[in-house]
Amino acid sequence: MSLSHIDSSNKAAMVDVSGKAITERIATAEALVTVNDAVAAQFDGSDLVSKKGPVFQTAILAGVMGAKQTSNLIPLCHPLPLDKVGIDITFENNTAIIRCTAKTTGKTGVEMEALTGASIAALTLHDMCKALDPAIVISQVRLLEKTGGKSDYRA
Amino acid sequence: MSLSHIDSSNKAAMVDVSGKAITERIATAEALVTVNDAVAAQFDGSDLVSKKGPVFQTAILAGVMGAKQTSNLIPLCHPLPLDKVGIDITFENNTAIIRCTAKTTGKTGVEMEALTGASIAALTLHDMCKALDPAIVISQVRLLEKTGGKSDYRA
Amino acid sequence: MSLSHIDSSNKAAMVDVSGKAITERIATAEALVTVNDAVAAQFDGSDLVSKKGPVFQTAILAGVMGAKQTSNLIPLCHPLPLDKVGIDITFENNTAIIRCTAKTTGKTGVEMEALTGASIAALTLHDMCKALDPAIVISQVRLLEKTGGKSDYRA
Amino acid sequence: MSLSHIDSSNKAAMVDVSGKAITERIATAEALVTVNDAVAAQFDGSDLVSKKGPVFQTAILAGVMGAKQTSNLIPLCHPLPLDKVGIDITFENNTAIIRCTAKTTGKTGVEMEALTGASIAALTLHDMCKALDPAIVISQVRLLEKTGGKSDYRA
Amino acid sequence: MSLSHIDSSNKAAMVDVSGKAITERIATAEALVTVNDAVAAQFDGSDLVSKKGPVFQTAILAGVMGAKQTSNLIPLCHPLPLDKVGIDITFENNTAIIRCTAKTTGKTGVEMEALTGASIAALTLHDMCKALDPAIVISQVRLLEKTGGKSDYRA
Amino acid sequence: MSLSHIDSSNKAAMVDVSGKAITERIATAEALVTVNDAVAAQFDGSDLVSKKGPVFQTAILAGVMGAKQTSNLIPLCHPLPLDKVGIDITFENNTAIIRCTAKTTGKTGVEMEALTGASIAALTLHDMCKALDPAIVISQVRLLEKTGGKSDYRA
Repeated sequence: MSLSHIDSSNKAAMVDVSGKAITERIATAEALVTVNDAVAAQFDGSDLVSKKGPVFQTAILAGVMGAKQTSNLIPLCHPLPLDKVGIDITFENNTAIIRCTAKTTGKTGVEMEALTGASIAALTLHDMCKALDPAIVISQVRLLEKTGGKSDYRA
Repeated sequence: MSLSHIDSSNKAAMVDVSGKAITERIATAEALVTVNDAVAAQFDGSDLVSKKGPVFQTAILAGVMGAKQTSNLIPLCHPLPLDKVGIDITFENNTAIIRCTAKTTGKTGVEMEALTGASIAALTLHDMCKALDPAIVISQVRLLEKTGGKSDYRA
Repeated sequence: MSLSHIDSSNKAAMVDVSGKAITERIATAEALVTVNDAVAAQFDGSDLVSKKGPVFQTAILAGVMGAKQTSNLIPLCHPLPLDKVGIDITFENNTAIIRCTAKTTGKTGVEMEALTGASIAALTLHDMCKALDPAIVISQVRLLEKTGGKSDYRA
Repeated sequence: MSLSHIDSSNKAAMVDVSGKAITERIATAEALVTVNDAVAAQFDGSDLVSKKGPVFQTAILAGVMGAKQTSNLIPLCHPLPLDKVGIDITFENNTAIIRCTAKTTGKTGVEMEALTGASIAALTLHDMCKALDPAIVISQVRLLEKTGGKSDYRA
Repeated sequence: MSLSHIDSSNKAAMVDVSGKAITERIATAEALVTVNDAVAAQFDGSDLVSKKGPVFQTAILAGVMGAKQTSNLIPLCHPLPLDKVGIDITFENNTAIIRCTAKTTGKTGVEMEALTGASIAALTLHDMCKALDPAIVISQVRLLEKTGGKSDYRA
Repeated sequence: MSLSHIDSSNKAAMVDVSGKAITERIATAEALVTVNDAVAAQFDGSDLVSKKGPVFQTAILAGVMGAKQTSNLIPLCHPLPLDKVGIDITFENNTAIIRCTAKTTGKTGVEMEALTGASIAALTLHDMCKALDPAIVISQVRLLEKTGGKSDYRA
C-alpha cells in the first residue's frame, strides 16, 4: 500500500469513482467532548441544559445537517445521496460520547460524512457550553467502523 | 457564573447581541491530527504528498472556507463579517498541529469560527490520508486564546 | 398507523431508507398569497410588475432554486437528485395561486421539495410586494398530491 | 405610495441601501400549522413527540438556521449580520402557532428573515408529522410587527 | 508594487483587513456571451426566449444570487454585507453584454462580487441556450471600474 | 432544431429528465486567464506565487468545489451525484489555460459542472493576482467536449 500513484503535477483531484460498483455503504465515527464540573452539573439525566437550549438535542440536529454538508466542506469528497444519518450522544464522567452513523447506496464510502457529522455535533456542544467552560476539549475524533467498500474496517 | 438563566421553555435560541459593543475580536483554536508511519513517510519537509494532492495546502484552504461557513453549521452562531481567517500547520512526530485564527470587528466573538476552521482542516487532512491510514485520530480540538470580548481567555 | 415507534431516547433521526425501492416519485404542493388592491393593480395580465422586477418570474426561479435546497433546510430530509422542479403561478381575486411539482427517481418522496419550492416562491412574492402591502398573507400551504411511494395521496 | 418607479427595462434588482441609516431593526412574523387529531394526540404538554424526534425543538432549530439562509433563498434580499433570531411555538386546538423574531443593526429590515424563519419551522413541523397527517396545512404566514426602519408596522 | 511579501511558508491566507477603513465601495464587471444565429433568432427585442424560460431575466437573477455567494466560492474572499447588486444585459450582434455592479460599505472591495455575478449570469445564459448552440463562448470577463478603496481603477 | 417548444406562459422550468436513460456522462470545459508581465514574473515553473498563497493550487481546489455547487448556482440545473471533477492548469505566454472535466453516471449531462468549475477556478486566479494586475481578463470560457448523452459534442 503506498501513496506513490501521485499525479505528475501534484494537483489536488477527486478520485474517479465512475467504474466502482454501487453497494450499500455504512460508516460510524466517534467524537468525545470533555467538559468541566460546572457544565457537567447541568446534566439532567438525558440532556445538558444550557441557557442556549437543550445541548444534546441541538448537537444531534446540527450533526445530522452537517453530515449532509460534507461534500461542500471537504474539497475532494463526492456529493452523493444519503440513506440515513443518525447520531447518538451518551454522557458519563464529564465526557459526551458522540457517535454518528451514515449510510448510502453508492460508489464511494461515507466515512467523511460520519466524521463530519460527529465533528459538527461536537462543535455545537462546545458552542452551547463555552460560557461555562471555555476550556472544553474535543478528542478521539475517529472512524469506528466502515463496511460495504473494497475493504471493511473496524477500529 | 451559571447556566441558571434558562428560558422557561428550554427552547434553543440565539443570544441577543444587539446591545453589545462592536470591538475587534480575535480567537485562535487548535486541532491535532495523528497519523501512522505510512502517512508520515510521505512528508516532504513542507507538506504531506498524497495521491489526492498536497495535503496541508488543501486542508488550509478547506479550513479557511469552513470557517466562513460557521454560522451555517453551528445552529446558534451569529452570521458576521470576518476580517481574516488564517491557518498554519506544522508536522512533527507523526502529528499535524493545526492552528486557526479568526478576526472580526463585531458584537460577538469568533471562537467558533476558529474551532470550525481547525476542525474542517483536520477532517480534510483525514480525508486525504485515510487510504493509507484509516485509524487517523483528531484530538485536542480546543480554544487556545480569545481577546476582545467581555473577558479574554488563554488556554 | 401511529407514532409509537419512538426511539427510546427521543432523539431526532433521519428515517433509514436504505431498504426502500427506487421508484419514480412525484409530489405537487400549493401555496396561496393574498395581496391588497394596490398590489393587484400592478397585474399586467401575466405578471405583477414591481419596482424590484417581475414578481412571478422571480418567485418561480426562487422556488425552483429553493426546492433544490430542501435537504439543507429541513433537518431530517434526505439529500437526493431531482428529475424536475416546476412552478406555475396564476392570479385571480387578489390571490396568487402557486403550484410546485417535484419529481425524483429514488427511495423517498419529494413532498418536502414541493412544499419548500411553493413556500420560497410565496416568500419571494411577499418580499417583492411588501413595500405596497406589508399585510400580505401566505396561506393554504399544503400537499395536493403525491404518487410513487408506499401510498399515494390526493388532497 | 406606488410601484411606479419601475426601472425602464423591468429587470430584477436589489434595492440600493447604501444611503440608508444604520438602525436597530426588529421584525416578528407568524405561521400557523394545523394538524389532525392523530398528530395532536402526540402532544405531551410541551412538545409533539414523533418517531422522527421532538417536533417543536427540531422546528425551532430549523427555523433559526433557515432565517440565517434568507439572503441565499430570497433573490433580492440583502445579506446582513443578525443580532438575534428567536422562535417560540405554542400549541392549542390542533394548531401550532409559530412566532419568529429577527433583529439586526443595519441598513435594511429583517421582515424576510422573520418570515423565512417562521416558514422553515412550519415546513419542518410538517415534515416530521406528515406520516400521521399528509393533509397538514400551513396558514397565516404573515408579518406581525416591524420597527426601526422608515416606517413601523403592526398587524 | 510586487508580490514579494510572500509569507514564508507559501500558505494560502486571507488578507487581514481589520485595520482598514470602512468606506463605500463600488465595483462593476463585465462578461460577454456570444451565441450563434439560431439562438440570436430567439431575441424578441428585450429578452432571449428559450424553452427553459426567459433567458436574460433568469441570468440576471442567477447573477445577483451568485454575487451573494462570492465569499463561499472564492476561497480567500471576505464575507461582507452588500448594499446592492445589480445586473444589466444588452444584446447586439449575437453578443450579450452583461454588466454587474456591486456595492458595500465595508473594509474591502467588491470586485470579486461584481465579477462573480457577471460570470454566473453568463453561465446561466449558456445553460439556457446550449441546446441550440453548444459552442457558446463567454469572453471579456473583467473588471470595468472600482472606487472607494486605496486606489480607484477604470478599465 | 428549434426553441419552439416554449411553454405557453414563458415561465422558467427545469427540463424533466425522469424518462432519460442513466449513462456515464463526461464533459470538459476550458477558460483562459490572461495576466500582465508583473504577474507572469511570479511563475515559478509550476505555479504562480502570490502573497495570498499558491495561485494554481488554490484555483484548482476552488474550481473543484465550485463545480459541486453548480446546481445551487445555475437556476435550472439538476442536482446530481458526481463521479469526478478534475482541473488542470497550464501557463504559457502570460495565459493560464484552465481545463475542468466532470463525470457523472446519471440522466443529464455535466457541461455546466465543467463550465462552472473552470469559471470559478478562473475567478479565483483573478482574485489572487488582482493586486498586481487589476486588468486581468478571463476569456474563451467554453465547452470543449461532451460524451454520453443523446449527442456528443467536440469543439
